[in-house]
Amino acid sequence: MIGSTSPALEVALAYYKAWTNHDLEKAMSYIADDIVCDAPAGRLVGAAAYRDFIGPFLQILTGSELVAAFGDDEKAVVMYDTETLPVESAPGAECVTVKDGKITRSLFIFNRVPFDAARRAQANAPT
Amino acid sequence: MIGSTSPALEVALAYYKAWTNHDLEKAMSYIADDIVCDAPAGRLVGAAAYRDFIGPFLQILTGSELVAAFGDDEKAVVMYDTETLPVESAPGAECVTVKDGKITRSLFIFNRVPFDAARRAQANAPT
Repeated sequence: MIGSTSPALEVALAYYKAWTNHDLEKAMSYIADDIVCDAPAGRLVGAAAYRDFIGPFLQILTGSELVAAFGDDEKAVVMYDTETLPVESAPGAECVTVKDGKITRSLFIFNRVPFDAARRAQANAPT
Repeated sequence: MIGSTSPALEVALAYYKAWTNHDLEKAMSYIADDIVCDAPAGRLVGAAAYRDFIGPFLQILTGSELVAAFGDDEKAVVMYDTETLPVESAPGAECVTVKDGKITRSLFIFNRVPFDAARRAQANAPT
C-alpha cells in the first residue's frame, strides 16, 4: 500500500529512496547501530557490516523499479527490480523491522546466482 | 498485515497454506491458467509450467515459517523461510497479482545458490 500511513513503511521507503539515489550516508541514517540482517551471504550484525554489504552494491547499481511496498506499525516489506552493471534484472525483497525510525532487523532476499556467474565470467575474461 | 481484509492477500495466504501443506492440487486451484511468473530460473508462462516448477519443490519441502504478509485489493506480498531437504533455511518472497480469485502474475524471489550447491554436492557424492 504505497502511500499508506505506516510508520515502518515510511522509513523503509525513505531508506529505499536514499540507496536508489546512491546516497549511502542518507541510507545508513535509517540503519540502527545494532542491525541484524539476514542476507544471501549470511548474517550481518551491526551497521559497519551492513555498510560493507550495501556500499559496494551501490557502486554497481544503475537503476531500480519499485514492485511493491506494504507495512504496518513495526514491519514493512519492499520489493523491487534492480538493474546493475553485471546483472540487468536483479529483483530483491526486504522485510524490515523499524524501531524509533531505524531499521533494526532485515531479511534480505535476492538470487545470487547471476552475480556469481558475472563474477566468474569477469575472472575468466582475457586481460 | 496478517488478518487484514485484502482480497489479494486472502488468496495469497490460502495459496501459501495449500503449498506448505503439500497440497499441490489445492495450491494450483489458486493459479490462473495464463499465469506469468518471473522466477530465478526465468519466466514461466501458464499453469502447466508453474506446476512443473512448484511440484518438485513441494517434494523437498519439510517446513515453512511465515515472515510477513501484506496486501491490498489486487496485489499481495508473502515472505517466508522454508526448510527443505537440501537447504535448511531458504527464505523466499512472492509478489502476486490476483484477479477473480486467481493469481495471474507472480514475482518469485529466492537465492538459488544453496540449491545449486546441494545439487552439485549430490552429483559428486560417491554412489
